[in-house]
Amino acid sequence: MKLYDLALADIDVRPSPFCWLAKFALLHKGLEFETEPLRFAEKHNYPDQDHGRVPILRDGDHIISDSANIIAYLEKSYPGERIVATPGEQAAADFYNSWVGANLFPALGPVMFVRVHAAVHEDDKEYFRSSREKRFGQTLEELSMTPGLKEKAEASLQVLSAPLVRHKFLGGDKPNLSDYIVFSPFMWQRVTTSETFYETPQAVGAWQERMLDLFDGYARKAKTLGDKTAA
Amino acid sequence: MKLYDLALADIDVRPSPFCWLAKFALLHKGLEFETEPLRFAEKHNYPDQDHGRVPILRDGDHIISDSANIIAYLEKSYPGERIVATPGEQAAADFYNSWVGANLFPALGPVMFVRVHAAVHEDDKEYFRSSREKRFGQTLEELSMTPGLKEKAEASLQVLSAPLVRHKFLGGDKPNLSDYIVFSPFMWQRVTTSETFYETPQAVGAWQERMLDLFDGYARKAKTLGDKTAA
Repeated sequence: MKLYDLALADIDVRPSPFCWLAKFALLHKGLEFETEPLRFAEKHNYPDQDHGRVPILRDGDHIISDSANIIAYLEKSYPGERIVATPGEQAAADFYNSWVGANLFPALGPVMFVRVHAAVHEDDKEYFRSSREKRFGQTLEELSMTPGLKEKAEASLQVLSAPLVRHKFLGGDKPNLSDYIVFSPFMWQRVTTSETFYETPQAVGAWQERMLDLFDGYARKAKTLGDKTAA
Repeated sequence: MKLYDLALADIDVRPSPFCWLAKFALLHKGLEFETEPLRFAEKHNYPDQDHGRVPILRDGDHIISDSANIIAYLEKSYPGERIVATPGEQAAADFYNSWVGANLFPALGPVMFVRVHAAVHEDDKEYFRSSREKRFGQTLEELSMTPGLKEKAEASLQVLSAPLVRHKFLGGDKPNLSDYIVFSPFMWQRVTTSETFYETPQAVGAWQERMLDLFDGYARKAKTLGDKTAA
């Protein structure tokens, strides 16, 4: 199996939170896979010419795009451990996904876009900038100065800390889809920058460390922009 | 079993969201119980003189206060159907609880306090007003004019609609603790006022109707302040 994974100028640096979600799903199922780095501009290398956005999974003759479709495909096609065990856990994962989109991405994203822009391949810079600036109606530099981001991030992490004070994972005793959905934006940040601009509650920080340790430290070993000297 | 339940001047009107949570837990377990109306000022009638806040459950010699303690007690003491089936569902319920406290209560509460104040017993008015005004540092009338409440409520309901587009309940196929936690503030509102000041997404409205139908329409039959002519 091959997962097409967004790459920056350094093709070993893989920031996309949606690709991280797909990678965690593959790891959770215990499946062997390799990642194939793709830059935004490399449309000709996309396995499905109709769908130019990663993540894309190639499994033999099957080509599946979009992290939610990939997860549904893996659950249906492979026994292994369930990524979500009950309809209630699926409903909770849908809520976390919605909450992340309304709270975590808007708090973390504006600061990250400038950094990602600086680290994408030369051929990707114009596309990355213009697509984001069109979506938000501001320059990347203006976006990074959005007021109240620290307060927004800290309010979100405070809400998130409640389940993590009492449980090892959002999935309870072990990680499930909810953990991967909520942790993926933090991988986007970790890969992109070593600095955070907000305080992380203790219970959330401890959970992040557990997430980095999963699957033989797969996420912890991921190359970051801060590792450049070792490149 | 007897549940001590907060009452307004009309002792059949029971607005407390925390008491609603305890009532839903009793109903979910299929247990027989009666409610005992208590007003704020009736401290001498509280079964536990050390703990003057409802809900309080009396089960034979056991007196349990606080909705979370009551739920834990019911799960431990009575077989019946589990209110939360898995550690993952408990963790999700903890997240919903934290989200409700940070998003739903602050959006719905400020408008409701004035209405509840108008409907509490004469002996409770001074306590109700001064306790809320001390907590928020504003008069009830100022609180009710808090700007942005409509937008805050609608943003919260938008996040909540995502799981409810795909599932009948937050618990998946059937209601669990998460449903009761999130629905209880809406019962507080329903009992107190027939007006809402925000738009409810279709999926959330349909779920609210399903919640009202549960347990032979227990919540739907609850007396509201709008029913006064029938009192």
